[in-house]
Amino acid sequence: MKLSTLFVKTQKQDPSGEESINAKLLIRWGFVYKEMAGVYTFLPLWLRVLHKIENIIRKHINTVWTELLMTALSPEESWVRTGRLETIDVLMKTSGANEISRNKSTNEYVLNCTHEDMITPIVKSYVNSYKDLPVHAYQIQNKFRNEARAKSGILRGREFRMKDLYSFHATEEDFEQYYDHMKTVYADIFEELGIGDQTYVTLASGWDFTKRYSHEFQTVCSVGEDIIYTDKASKMAINQEVWNDETKALFPDAQWEETTASEVGNIFPLETKFTKATDFTFVDADDTKKHPIMGSYGIGPSRVMWVIVEIFNDAKWIIRPKNIAPFEYVIIAIGDRWLEEATKLYDTLVAKWLDVCIDDRNMGPWAKFADAELIGYPTQIIIGNKTLEQWMSCEVVDRATGEKELKKIADLSL
Amino acid sequence: MKLSTLFVKTQKQDPSGEESINAKLLIRWGFVYKEMAGVYTFLPLWLRVLHKIENIIRKHINTVWTELLMTALSPEESWVRTGRLETIDVLMKTSGANEISRNKSTNEYVLNCTHEDMITPIVKSYVNSYKDLPVHAYQIQNKFRNEARAKSGILRGREFRMKDLYSFHATEEDFEQYYDHMKTVYADIFEELGIGDQTYVTLASGWDFTKRYSHEFQTVCSVGEDIIYTDKASKMAINQEVWNDETKALFPDAQWEETTASEVGNIFPLETKFTKATDFTFVDADDTKKHPIMGSYGIGPSRVMWVIVEIFNDAKWIIRPKNIAPFEYVIIAIGDRWLEEATKLYDTLVAKWLDVCIDDRNMGPWAKFADAELIGYPTQIIIGNKTLEQWMSCEVVDRATGEKELKKIADLSL
Repeated sequence: MKLSTLFVKTQKQDPSGEESINAKLLIRWGFVYKEMAGVYTFLPLWLRVLHKIENIIRKHINTVWTELLMTALSPEESWVRTGRLETIDVLMKTSGANEISRNKSTNEYVLNCTHEDMITPIVKSYVNSYKDLPVHAYQIQNKFRNEARAKSGILRGREFRMKDLYSFHATEEDFEQYYDHMKTVYADIFEELGIGDQTYVTLASGWDFTKRYSHEFQTVCSVGEDIIYTDKASKMAINQEVWNDETKALFPDAQWEETTASEVGNIFPLETKFTKATDFTFVDADDTKKHPIMGSYGIGPSRVMWVIVEIFNDAKWIIRPKNIAPFEYVIIAIGDRWLEEATKLYDTLVAKWLDVCIDDRNMGPWAKFADAELIGYPTQIIIGNKTLEQWMSCEVVDRATGEKELKKIADLSL
Repeated sequence: MKLSTLFVKTQKQDPSGEESINAKLLIRWGFVYKEMAGVYTFLPLWLRVLHKIENIIRKHINTVWTELLMTALSPEESWVRTGRLETIDVLMKTSGANEISRNKSTNEYVLNCTHEDMITPIVKSYVNSYKDLPVHAYQIQNKFRNEARAKSGILRGREFRMKDLYSFHATEEDFEQYYDHMKTVYADIFEELGIGDQTYVTLASGWDFTKRYSHEFQTVCSVGEDIIYTDKASKMAINQEVWNDETKALFPDAQWEETTASEVGNIFPLETKFTKATDFTFVDADDTKKHPIMGSYGIGPSRVMWVIVEIFNDAKWIIRPKNIAPFEYVIIAIGDRWLEEATKLYDTLVAKWLDVCIDDRNMGPWAKFADAELIGYPTQIIIGNKTLEQWMSCEVVDRATGEKELKKIADLSL
């Protein structure tokens, strides 16, 4: 990408009307644009970060594959069938916006905030026997929630990205095994996203139809909406909502610490709630009909992004985890004099499929350096130093300390 | 991908309640699942096709970059400002679905069917001078339309994918040049998608606020909703809605043929309609304030998919363009005996990042061959022929004739 084609600019002032650090910074840096409370456009550099996060999630989930893409709209009947049309307090409905469009169709649809009610009939239509199980399917998609007040800047939105996975099993044992496996998959994902140290597997309440606990993945963060009790040694935590003698007894050796945290993922045992509601049965090995046992597993990629900004906003380094910077390399040309050489190098690296952009904007070098710091490219390749020997030098940033080292480009083995 | 992890199965019977060929075939093949009229889930293999189409579009558009991601929800004010809340007949609105969610928020939002009304304020916030222009920005996203009757199966949906690009220019000349450039970019895209021969640049009416013509990209197709007049020699056409002496006079040498077609893309001159409505001005070189001139450019990736199925559904070859098959290679293991060898080859090819899947399902070889034909993998690698010399053979399909050639895998230079 040539930054000269990017219409977005960084701003020196904090935007008005935003309280949270994540929203203030992301707007200043030209990463998001606020459409209205809880609804933000992803500007180009931020969209790249989102895609990188989603592809990291995909990479880990694909070990147990199957990606599909369900719809945002669903018929009301799907929610009536499962009894959730009247119980979910954030459910949104859609219909015509004006006299003309209202007359075009008398139907009203639900805008999905989750997809258990949709995936169950889909899987049902393909599963007959225990031999067809287990089934797992996931998607990455926008969800909609009628939040009373979109809180903490961008943390809780009315429209947000979600990776949601659903699994269907013939036996309780198979479900348990898969559910535990997903805990480790999730831990690996948050580790790779750079928030492994701050993220706790947290005991929380399940849905209203079950007495089982669910497991949230809570990232310790000062603006988090939840209060949890963490045990550093075991990396386990208990959500305040289920903090009682029964849950504490499950971890007799824990040293509890109270903290605020933000939920970046969750996994739910759903028992046969949805398979019963949709008359979904399979023929088991003993020739009897049974309802599959189901689980659901979510990660919010956009939520992860806001949490990362909240955690790593110290000084200038906004996107500390190197693997989710918008670009791995930025080439900075010092003035027009070096632009031709810089563009040549850019073309070479693009041809090698490297994750590189060039700052070819008509601006002074210090403004370019300042932007590069803000955006947080792991490697800055600066073209234009004074002596011929150094002119193709490269500053490599140590992201742990913020220190820079000058290297020859030849030594980078690009 | 291991096909054993895919829960979807092909079906022998046409589904009931579907009239169009594209919907019937796609449901039978396990490519889509019908949620309700005009709203279809993309099952895993079909999602891969969608992603391939979208990445081909991205590749061409990225020569003039900038991808962002706007929101599906927008505040009503955005549509009031441009005067379109009351005039667009397919606009949908959203609010709470039940007593609880209605009480949570008194706001109502529009579900966007297009994004001119949203992109203009975003670009406005970053543009001050003629030096900041031109700007181009695009996204790939789901759109919503309150269609009275979702027609032609999956061709016209209530929820569908759209690549929409918007451009802003300081001068009419710059706009014209860009608009013409987009015509050639679009022609290249449809060529690469395999429907170049059938797709015509078609003169059509503009929006209500302008007297200019727009240009549609119409693919000749028996279930198409539009009637157009094509001229084979120039690859131009005229939409029936503007078929008159004035338009015909623009192409004096044309030999017109009437045909049905489906609109897979369109480009619109928008003049200063939206920049005026949003008070978007820039300071020109002569120090006067002007409104940028705007254009919009759309391609419907899901529409393209349905059209391809309609065009290429003869016999069994459903996804004829090779570059949008769900996988380029399928490895078919004949029985358990060869599964280990087949899996070894699969692992090798996956490690080389080849676009490959393995049919490791517990099924007879003929059922596997039949599915492979249906799904239309360009290359079938069949492991399990009887003699040792031939057992790692490979059938390469000539997609023009449907003929197969037996090759040694070593000769494929994978």
